[in-house]
Amino acid sequence: MCIITLLTDFGLADAYVGVMKGVILTINPKARIVDISHQVKPQNILQASYILKTAYSYFPEQSIHVVVVDPGVGTDRSIIALKTNRHVFLAPDNGVLSMVMHEAHPELAVNVTEKQYFLKTMSHTFHGRDIFAPVAAYLSTGIPIDVLGESIPCDNIKKLPQISCHIAETGNIHGTIIHVDHFGNLITNIDYQALNYFGENKQQLQTHINGQCIKGISACYEQVPMHHPLVLIGSSGYLEISVHQGSAKQYFHAGIHDPVFIDRMVS
Amino acid sequence: MCIITLLTDFGLADAYVGVMKGVILTINPKARIVDISHQVKPQNILQASYILKTAYSYFPEQSIHVVVVDPGVGTDRSIIALKTNRHVFLAPDNGVLSMVMHEAHPELAVNVTEKQYFLKTMSHTFHGRDIFAPVAAYLSTGIPIDVLGESIPCDNIKKLPQISCHIAETGNIHGTIIHVDHFGNLITNIDYQALNYFGENKQQLQTHINGQCIKGISACYEQVPMHHPLVLIGSSGYLEISVHQGSAKQYFHAGIHDPVFIDRMVS
Amino acid sequence: MCIITLLTDFGLADAYVGVMKGVILTINPKARIVDISHQVKPQNILQASYILKTAYSYFPEQSIHVVVVDPGVGTDRSIIALKTNRHVFLAPDNGVLSMVMHEAHPELAVNVTEKQYFLKTMSHTFHGRDIFAPVAAYLSTGIPIDVLGESIPCDNIKKLPQISCHIAETGNIHGTIIHVDHFGNLITNIDYQALNYFGENKQQLQTHINGQCIKGISACYEQVPMHHPLVLIGSSGYLEISVHQGSAKQYFHAGIHDPVFIDRMVS
Repeated sequence: MCIITLLTDFGLADAYVGVMKGVILTINPKARIVDISHQVKPQNILQASYILKTAYSYFPEQSIHVVVVDPGVGTDRSIIALKTNRHVFLAPDNGVLSMVMHEAHPELAVNVTEKQYFLKTMSHTFHGRDIFAPVAAYLSTGIPIDVLGESIPCDNIKKLPQISCHIAETGNIHGTIIHVDHFGNLITNIDYQALNYFGENKQQLQTHINGQCIKGISACYEQVPMHHPLVLIGSSGYLEISVHQGSAKQYFHAGIHDPVFIDRMVS
Repeated sequence: MCIITLLTDFGLADAYVGVMKGVILTINPKARIVDISHQVKPQNILQASYILKTAYSYFPEQSIHVVVVDPGVGTDRSIIALKTNRHVFLAPDNGVLSMVMHEAHPELAVNVTEKQYFLKTMSHTFHGRDIFAPVAAYLSTGIPIDVLGESIPCDNIKKLPQISCHIAETGNIHGTIIHVDHFGNLITNIDYQALNYFGENKQQLQTHINGQCIKGISACYEQVPMHHPLVLIGSSGYLEISVHQGSAKQYFHAGIHDPVFIDRMVS
Repeated sequence: MCIITLLTDFGLADAYVGVMKGVILTINPKARIVDISHQVKPQNILQASYILKTAYSYFPEQSIHVVVVDPGVGTDRSIIALKTNRHVFLAPDNGVLSMVMHEAHPELAVNVTEKQYFLKTMSHTFHGRDIFAPVAAYLSTGIPIDVLGESIPCDNIKKLPQISCHIAETGNIHGTIIHVDHFGNLITNIDYQALNYFGENKQQLQTHINGQCIKGISACYEQVPMHHPLVLIGSSGYLEISVHQGSAKQYFHAGIHDPVFIDRMVS
C-alpha cells in the first residue's frame, strides 16, 4: 500500500482537490489518498506547517505527504522532495516544512525539476494539479526521490522563525498563536519542553493573552467550570488556551499570530 | 472488505480527521474509511444521534460506525462498543446511540477499557486519535467486541429523552427540531407512525412553528409554489419543514431544539 | 478499478454524501469513490456545469461522473446517462452537462428509467441515495448504459445558454462570471479561443467588471504588485479576474452571473 496525504489551502468548494486525486489515480490506480485538510487559511504557511506536524507521524512508513500552500506559484520558487527516515514530503520551499524538519530525521532533499514527472500541459496557477499530484503519484509507484532533480543540503530548506517560542530578557516565555482549531482552541508555539525552563511546579505559571491572565496548567477541560478558560498541553504537545465547552477564540478575541507570554505568579 | 465510518464534530479545518485515518490505516491497511460528517455542531449529541440514524443502515453488514461527539472527553465517561444484528457501533456513552438503539437490534454491548487496543501515548483531549481510531481499526481486522472490556446490559446505554415526540393532553403531537440540514430544511423528531395517531386523512393536519402554521402534508417540493413553505415526510422518515427552493431555517428563523406541534384543522 | 466521482450541492454537514457512498459500496465493494465537490451553491446548475468541466478529463478512462444538483427532484424531470469516448456521466437533464457536451464526444445517451437499478424504497426528495448512487454502482460493475432505459438523441440533452460568451454588435466580448473559487477568483465563460477574435496582441485588451477596468492579460499573479487586480487565463482555460494574494470577489464586490466585457484600449 502506498499512502499519499494532501494538505492544501484549496478549500472544498472547487474541483481543485478532486482534480489532484484524478491525476494521481490516473498514474497510480493503487494509491491510497487521505485528506489532512484543505482549509488552511489561504497562503498561511505557518498554520500549514503546524497542521502537517500534528499529522504526519500517525501515518504508516513510506507515506508521501504533499503540501500545496503555495503563495509563490508561478514564480521561480523551488519545489522540494524531502526524505526522512520514515516518510517522504513534497512541498514548495517556503518554510512549510519547518516544524517537520525540527523533529523528523531528514536524509535527503531534492530540488524537483524533472519535467517528465509533471503533466504535459502546465498552467501558471495550479501546480497542485500539474506538478505536485503527478510527482506524488510517481513517488507512490516506488521511484526514488533523487530522480526528481538535483539533491540539495537539507539545511538549505527554508525555515520559519515563528515555529519556536523564546525566553525573553525578563525571564518570561514569549510565544505566538500558530493555529486556531475548529473548536476555537488557541494553539501556541510553546511546547512542554519550553515550560521546563520554569522547573517542576507548573501550577505557579500564568498565561497572558490579550491583556487577560489564566492561572495554572490544567490536565483536562473538566478541571474548570463550564465556559471558563483554561490552559493545557494539547494533543499535539503544545500549550493550548481553551474554554470548557466554549471557544477561546471568541472568549479572548484572539487569532493566529497573536502574542502569548508566560510568567510565574508572584507569591 | 471492512468499512469504518466516521461521524464527529471535529470539522475539516484541522488534521483531527486525517490523523484518525492515519492511525486506522497503520493498524489495518485494508480498512475502507467513509466519512459520514465531521460538521456536527460542537458537542451536539442529539444532532449526531439523528445523523447516525439516517446513515448507518445504508452500509454493508459488518460495517463499523464510529461516533466521536464527546463533550466528556478526559472524564470518566464510558466508551461503548455495541453489536447489532448487522453492524458494530463505537461511541461515548452519552446518548449518541439513542436513535440507533430505538430501531436496530442490539445483541451485545461492551464497556471499552482494554488499553492494549489504544495508542500507547494517550492525551486527555483527543480520544478520537488515541482510543476510537485504534479500537475501530482492530475491530475491522476481525477481533470480537467482547475482548474490548466487560459486557454490559444494552438497556444500560444512555438514551436521550428528545428522540421521540409525544402526544400532549390536548391531543396534539408535540415535537422538536433535531437537525437543520444544508438546505435549511428543519427535521423534526415526529415520524410517520406518530402521524397515524390522527388517522388516515393527513391533509387535515397543520404544523405550527414559531407562531406560524403550515396546512397539510405534501408529497414533494413542487406541490407548492417557488419559495413557499411546506411540510413533508423527508428521506429519513421524519416530518420535515421545508421551503421550495429556499431555506425553512431562514423563513421561520428556526433552529435545533425549537418546538413544533401538530393539530387537526377545525372544520 | 472503477472510479465513481461525486459532484453535488449537498454540503458536508449532513449524512447525504456518506449515505450515497454506503449505497454504492453495498452494491459494488470495489468501487473507488472520489469527491469532486459537495459545495455547489444550492441548485446552481451553471456553477456545477463549470466545476464538472474543470474536473472530469483528469480522471482515468471509464470513470463514472455523478452529478446531483437537482432542483427538480421529485418532478418528472429525466435522469440521463451519457457515454462519451472516455467517460460515463449520470445527471439530471437540467443543463448540468452543458459544458461537458460542448467539448467531449458524446456517443450514447439514455433516459434512466429501469427501476431494477434503483433502491427498492424510494423517497421524493433524495434521489441521490435512491437512484443516482445505485445506478452509478451498477454501472461501475460493468453493465452497459443502454440497459438503464431508452436511448435518446444526444442533441436532446438540455443545454444552458450561459456557457459561452458572445460578440456584441459593438465588437466587444460579453461574458458572465460562472464561478467564484475558494480564493475569490472570478471565473468567466470567456475562453482563450474567444480572445483570438481580437487578434494576436492580447496586451491591448481591457476587462470591465462592475464599472472598473483591468488592462492587459497577465501570465501569473506575480506580474502585478501584491493586492493588485489582474486578468489571466486560469488553469481551466477560461479568463479569470484575480487579485494577487487577495480576493477579486471582495475587491470588485462581484459574484456568479455578474456581466463582464472585454474591449480594446483606444490607442
